[in-house]
Amino acid sequence: MTATTATSMQAFQTHSGMPAADTEAALAERYRQVRARSTALATPLSAEDAMVQSMADASPAKWHLAHTTWFFEQFVLGARAGYRPVNADWHYLFNSYYQSVGPMHARPQRGLLTRPSLAEVLAYREEVDSRMARAFEAGDFDGPLQQAILLGTHHEQQHQELLLTDIKHALWCNPLRPAYRDDLAGTTGEATPQRWIEFDEAIHVLGAEPWPAHETFAYDNESPRHRALVPAHALASRPVSNGEYRAFIDDGGYRNPALWMSEGWARVQTEGWCAPLYWEDDLERHFTLAGMGAIDPHAPVCHLSYYEADAYARWVGARLPTEAEWESAAAALLVEGGLADDAVLQPRAASDGPGLRQMFGDVWEWTSTAYGPYPGFRPLPGSLGEYNGKFMCGQWVLRGGSCVTPRDHIRASYRNFFYPPDRWQFSGLRLARDM
Amino acid sequence: MTATTATSMQAFQTHSGMPAADTEAALAERYRQVRARSTALATPLSAEDAMVQSMADASPAKWHLAHTTWFFEQFVLGARAGYRPVNADWHYLFNSYYQSVGPMHARPQRGLLTRPSLAEVLAYREEVDSRMARAFEAGDFDGPLQQAILLGTHHEQQHQELLLTDIKHALWCNPLRPAYRDDLAGTTGEATPQRWIEFDEAIHVLGAEPWPAHETFAYDNESPRHRALVPAHALASRPVSNGEYRAFIDDGGYRNPALWMSEGWARVQTEGWCAPLYWEDDLERHFTLAGMGAIDPHAPVCHLSYYEADAYARWVGARLPTEAEWESAAAALLVEGGLADDAVLQPRAASDGPGLRQMFGDVWEWTSTAYGPYPGFRPLPGSLGEYNGKFMCGQWVLRGGSCVTPRDHIRASYRNFFYPPDRWQFSGLRLARDM
Amino acid sequence: MTATTATSMQAFQTHSGMPAADTEAALAERYRQVRARSTALATPLSAEDAMVQSMADASPAKWHLAHTTWFFEQFVLGARAGYRPVNADWHYLFNSYYQSVGPMHARPQRGLLTRPSLAEVLAYREEVDSRMARAFEAGDFDGPLQQAILLGTHHEQQHQELLLTDIKHALWCNPLRPAYRDDLAGTTGEATPQRWIEFDEAIHVLGAEPWPAHETFAYDNESPRHRALVPAHALASRPVSNGEYRAFIDDGGYRNPALWMSEGWARVQTEGWCAPLYWEDDLERHFTLAGMGAIDPHAPVCHLSYYEADAYARWVGARLPTEAEWESAAAALLVEGGLADDAVLQPRAASDGPGLRQMFGDVWEWTSTAYGPYPGFRPLPGSLGEYNGKFMCGQWVLRGGSCVTPRDHIRASYRNFFYPPDRWQFSGLRLARDM
Amino acid sequence: MTATTATSMQAFQTHSGMPAADTEAALAERYRQVRARSTALATPLSAEDAMVQSMADASPAKWHLAHTTWFFEQFVLGARAGYRPVNADWHYLFNSYYQSVGPMHARPQRGLLTRPSLAEVLAYREEVDSRMARAFEAGDFDGPLQQAILLGTHHEQQHQELLLTDIKHALWCNPLRPAYRDDLAGTTGEATPQRWIEFDEAIHVLGAEPWPAHETFAYDNESPRHRALVPAHALASRPVSNGEYRAFIDDGGYRNPALWMSEGWARVQTEGWCAPLYWEDDLERHFTLAGMGAIDPHAPVCHLSYYEADAYARWVGARLPTEAEWESAAAALLVEGGLADDAVLQPRAASDGPGLRQMFGDVWEWTSTAYGPYPGFRPLPGSLGEYNGKFMCGQWVLRGGSCVTPRDHIRASYRNFFYPPDRWQFSGLRLARDM
Repeated sequence: MTATTATSMQAFQTHSGMPAADTEAALAERYRQVRARSTALATPLSAEDAMVQSMADASPAKWHLAHTTWFFEQFVLGARAGYRPVNADWHYLFNSYYQSVGPMHARPQRGLLTRPSLAEVLAYREEVDSRMARAFEAGDFDGPLQQAILLGTHHEQQHQELLLTDIKHALWCNPLRPAYRDDLAGTTGEATPQRWIEFDEAIHVLGAEPWPAHETFAYDNESPRHRALVPAHALASRPVSNGEYRAFIDDGGYRNPALWMSEGWARVQTEGWCAPLYWEDDLERHFTLAGMGAIDPHAPVCHLSYYEADAYARWVGARLPTEAEWESAAAALLVEGGLADDAVLQPRAASDGPGLRQMFGDVWEWTSTAYGPYPGFRPLPGSLGEYNGKFMCGQWVLRGGSCVTPRDHIRASYRNFFYPPDRWQFSGLRLARDM
Repeated sequence: MTATTATSMQAFQTHSGMPAADTEAALAERYRQVRARSTALATPLSAEDAMVQSMADASPAKWHLAHTTWFFEQFVLGARAGYRPVNADWHYLFNSYYQSVGPMHARPQRGLLTRPSLAEVLAYREEVDSRMARAFEAGDFDGPLQQAILLGTHHEQQHQELLLTDIKHALWCNPLRPAYRDDLAGTTGEATPQRWIEFDEAIHVLGAEPWPAHETFAYDNESPRHRALVPAHALASRPVSNGEYRAFIDDGGYRNPALWMSEGWARVQTEGWCAPLYWEDDLERHFTLAGMGAIDPHAPVCHLSYYEADAYARWVGARLPTEAEWESAAAALLVEGGLADDAVLQPRAASDGPGLRQMFGDVWEWTSTAYGPYPGFRPLPGSLGEYNGKFMCGQWVLRGGSCVTPRDHIRASYRNFFYPPDRWQFSGLRLARDM
Repeated sequence: MTATTATSMQAFQTHSGMPAADTEAALAERYRQVRARSTALATPLSAEDAMVQSMADASPAKWHLAHTTWFFEQFVLGARAGYRPVNADWHYLFNSYYQSVGPMHARPQRGLLTRPSLAEVLAYREEVDSRMARAFEAGDFDGPLQQAILLGTHHEQQHQELLLTDIKHALWCNPLRPAYRDDLAGTTGEATPQRWIEFDEAIHVLGAEPWPAHETFAYDNESPRHRALVPAHALASRPVSNGEYRAFIDDGGYRNPALWMSEGWARVQTEGWCAPLYWEDDLERHFTLAGMGAIDPHAPVCHLSYYEADAYARWVGARLPTEAEWESAAAALLVEGGLADDAVLQPRAASDGPGLRQMFGDVWEWTSTAYGPYPGFRPLPGSLGEYNGKFMCGQWVLRGGSCVTPRDHIRASYRNFFYPPDRWQFSGLRLARDM
Repeated sequence: MTATTATSMQAFQTHSGMPAADTEAALAERYRQVRARSTALATPLSAEDAMVQSMADASPAKWHLAHTTWFFEQFVLGARAGYRPVNADWHYLFNSYYQSVGPMHARPQRGLLTRPSLAEVLAYREEVDSRMARAFEAGDFDGPLQQAILLGTHHEQQHQELLLTDIKHALWCNPLRPAYRDDLAGTTGEATPQRWIEFDEAIHVLGAEPWPAHETFAYDNESPRHRALVPAHALASRPVSNGEYRAFIDDGGYRNPALWMSEGWARVQTEGWCAPLYWEDDLERHFTLAGMGAIDPHAPVCHLSYYEADAYARWVGARLPTEAEWESAAAALLVEGGLADDAVLQPRAASDGPGLRQMFGDVWEWTSTAYGPYPGFRPLPGSLGEYNGKFMCGQWVLRGGSCVTPRDHIRASYRNFFYPPDRWQFSGLRLARDM
């Protein structure tokens, strides 16, 4: 994904709510590039790697490849009368959670699908891409279908990130600790000092204009734009680093219940947590997509649950930011930071500079905000309305993207969400405090 | 609990943050009355009834009686050097979750404590009450201890409500469906039409002044006072009734996944929910603290999980209110409604009248707000800081009290919180909608 | 239970298969005595003690008292047309597992039955005993009913033992470790040396004649008499003692997988077993029905699972006896040993003497025989056929009775059976070896 | 596996206890053939098929291929000082349950091993086979190592059967129901009438002479030879057929608790069993290694748990045979029946004829005998002693081999064992009755 690509996407997005004739080419190009990147991500994987499912929350790479393809068949190609699916049997296998379009294969059983093979799934991708290309050329897509395509590309980018987080977990489960790729860049830098950036109380207008009523793409959960009163507060200039988190561990952070939410403490006990996920017991080495390596004390700490992020903040006398605090600070910033396009796939120390650093990329930042609807929230109509709304209970908002997020997929209003105990995402934290 | 009592409490509370000499008598009187009411609540129970624990979330009545007493021994009497506990062995048994004061008996095992007997626990209460009375007379309590006592009485009132919700569940588990009391008043009325009360966007100052820095008692989770922007919205004039909820059931509400949060739908499937807790399959009769009885279609629907409240609201094209919407509307209202003092112990239809009805009492109202800290939240110092803060993850706020809440325990800023699947509290809903 | 009693039972049993007119009085007397003993066993228990259920495998004392009474109502009084039950609602509550007579209250929920109260259950016992007494006087019982009564008394004696094992477990779950009785005899003696008694290969006729076709009572699982080839072997003269078992622990027995059945080793790991049930970590004290006390190294080791008994035998280079080895050796012996009639309720060291000691009483002896049907086994007809046969899978045979078994309930052909991980029975072992 | 092969094995086995110089060649040949057959079994599998693990009890085909190879490295090649393993890291991965040779990868996680790849495992097999071949040529194997090799080939044959049963289960879990092979022979015949063959009471000498003390190979659990009294009884001339079992289903067999062991009935309820494993709901079609197909009413019923076999026998008024009854009848018979060598991999109807039919092959026959040690049982010394003995608790004996058992692996004294609820083996039943 080159800078040129990012630009072309940018261009497309400026007009993409209701793509006019001249943006159809951009949409086709975006489709082509996103689809190609998914396939590229699977290149380092053997057929066996692509099939493994190491926990119910994760999915096999092969499933990600097939499900994202099914999405276009189901919601784009299949929306037209008389469409003959590439393989009618696969509908059941590759639906994820769209109750309104029929039953689905049980999620924890996705790792049992030896057939179709990886080769067949890749051929399935090619066939769907061909059909899509032919339809693009024929100008077959009306406005609603173009919107579904655009949504499908963003959906696929989410699965690209999940493919990486899921395969990282699966490879780590293998006692041999094999690397996903041996050729990843591994630069490191000096952590800059953490400074506090202060913000006065203010009413901000947050969120994105609803898409597709407005042109720029955003998920339904980012809308509508709404006014919010953000109290006076300060944000840390950068995420918490491995070295800082190490001090929390050394101070007995994992043994002191006073630092933890009640549910978090219970989890510490039952799971035996004593460090971030993927850290070795020596607290010196951890598992990465490049295999085992030394923990860089300057890089942002990563693979924390919400409970750990929250406990760390309490230990240091601070707190997590709310999502309104985060977004109001991020709204004016450029999307800069360690992102998937860099082919590092591991968080790195920020370069120094004024103001907020690394708001985007490197690690998702846990906020203290429970994931819920904005005032006036309306889900997308039809089956696609199942995309976000029905998960608005029990999860917490993370912001800013990570080192495995595509650059043209993240934005200031983007809301990611996971359950408080989840650790396998590239999740870290930035501190906040009251003023 | 008579009107006189309520008044004297009111008098006390006006000055109770740092009780002056003249309020000590009011504190002693409040202590006496709250303690007496707990014992009175246990009167209809046999020793066997008082021991039963029907699920891990519930506790035996005997445990409630002992734990609330232990609270005064631990945090008031025991705060003074050289204190000899009534029974040193019981500390371990009756600590609930205060990690900082030592280990505790496992919660799901509370129903195994055949000893001490109910008689011994009642004697324990009397002994502690005697010691407290002597200390009150001797003027032994300084300001911090007076605060701990006041907190202890509010703590005990919470357990009074839990004692009733827990024994209701336990008696219902018995196929004989025995009543808690045979002498409960059972009036019924016509449900008034539901109207919408509209509110413009406004900045409200919500929450309570922090206690004990300020005089009036409030839990730490109600503070600090803070400004919040509440968007334009409308609130229903009264809670949803049994009859209205029955229409949701009849319309297939429990069989339509599109109406449910994803986690709620999973729960519907695994638990086989098809009506509120305590309803019989015929949807005509339900279990109450007075035994089995006909469901009054005019009374507020009760014993709903958050998922059910949320699904009903979606079905009817509305939503749950936020806690800011609820509190800003309730702040100016008198505490009126069906409360525990009425000895009905079952929600009743509201009398008609202008404006919002039944904001207090009858049923706790689920809000759409995840339970979390207010901006600038500070837990109480020391062990009592474990009271509320550590539960601020994964639970949802309910507001307004119920038919088993003591009248002088509830207020507009009061925040109750339970997990989304919980149904054994007297929990219902009031509708809201965007404007 | 005095010697006189035992004798009168003996007298009765000699003729009891089809009791003639002159044995009806003996049956009535046996009924009276067995029933009285159950009530006596409950005397030390409070209503709360009588309600507790500490695990799914155990039942509350109150349930034992009610269920054994229900047995007579269901299978004796209720067998006559027009019978009006004492309380029709209780049928569902107090059926244990007789699928053929209707549904039943879920076993793990028995501890939730606060009603009927202990007092009501005791009154229920009295009422049924009165009805039984009147019917005995009126000569209302024909042969089949007399057989059901006799079976019912043996059934009740089994529940007497379970009442004691279950309350022991429940009281132990209370951190206060209260005693069941404070007045139990606590004698101790020197353990006699263990000798080996040798037996040549022989064909033995084992088992009991089928009852009621034959007069003497035996459970269906003890029949028919059948020939078995018992190979040459040796039996230890007495059960393994606490002191001997302590040597196994000190030698790392619980840490050496080579000594254990695969399932046993898994259980050691998951349950953290490192000593017999009820032993304290110091290996010096244990919990008994008389409360906490010193472990007598000379007394038989007790509260072992099958896995532990088997591992101990392997460690010492021996094995468990088969049930044929045990029965062929026991057949000629008198029923002598520490039994429930002695009011010690704890195993004691055997007195010295020639031959096999303590084959009866003190501890049930795990055999290496999986519980199954004898050749030609026929269950009792009708509902009573559910008594034993349907459990003939997955359990292991124990022989000889224990210190909580009534003397007139045990015999050489008696087969007890529990699951290999079960430890809450008074279960120990006697060694055997090949020759 | 041709007839020639079987003969050469036969020849080998006659002298194999302590193979003399002239049998070394036979051993090398047996090694070569067994090893080649494992690889052949994996030929129809993709790398993905070879990795799947559909339940904790099953293992991936790749794991079977690697583990059986590890066995020769660990116990044969590695027994010689200075041996350098092919890959030292794999020891941990491919140990199954030999606690005495070190820790092992958790069984339920075997399906997570994407690396080593199938190709690497096949290369590992080749490398070990080369090393073995060189050592054979060099005459490096002394008597004990020759014994370990012989044991290893039998061990591998067991895993060949498991590879087939495990992949059958895994492919069935895929909603596409793919076939393992498309080229399997599918003959069918008329079921012969079931006759009863009667046997008088007799003392039989059962079991095998202990190997390697005696020449002919047998597992330690088949020894020692011992005398057993077998009562008079009758055996059915052939296994129960699908058609006969269908009558049991049609008669409500799965809905009548009176027919079931208590544990079996619980399993019927919790698992929703209403037909043998792999049968479709229509009772007309089932899944086989050749894919979906019609159920042949004449073929032996298969994939039954012990509970189902036992319940069927009770329904028809018969019982399961004991293993002594089975073995005493089989001892004089030739090993004839549908075996893995036939490349059908599905049970077939027996041809008619006098006496007992299909005692070998087609379906394993559940006996009523709990798996335990024979009188005088001694496990093999050292780590290999973990092979059988530690599983002698909680499992039931099956006899006779199945359609996926190699012909030269089965014999009259062979004891297979599984847990009562297990259904994924090719397990059926033959009826017995008392006389």
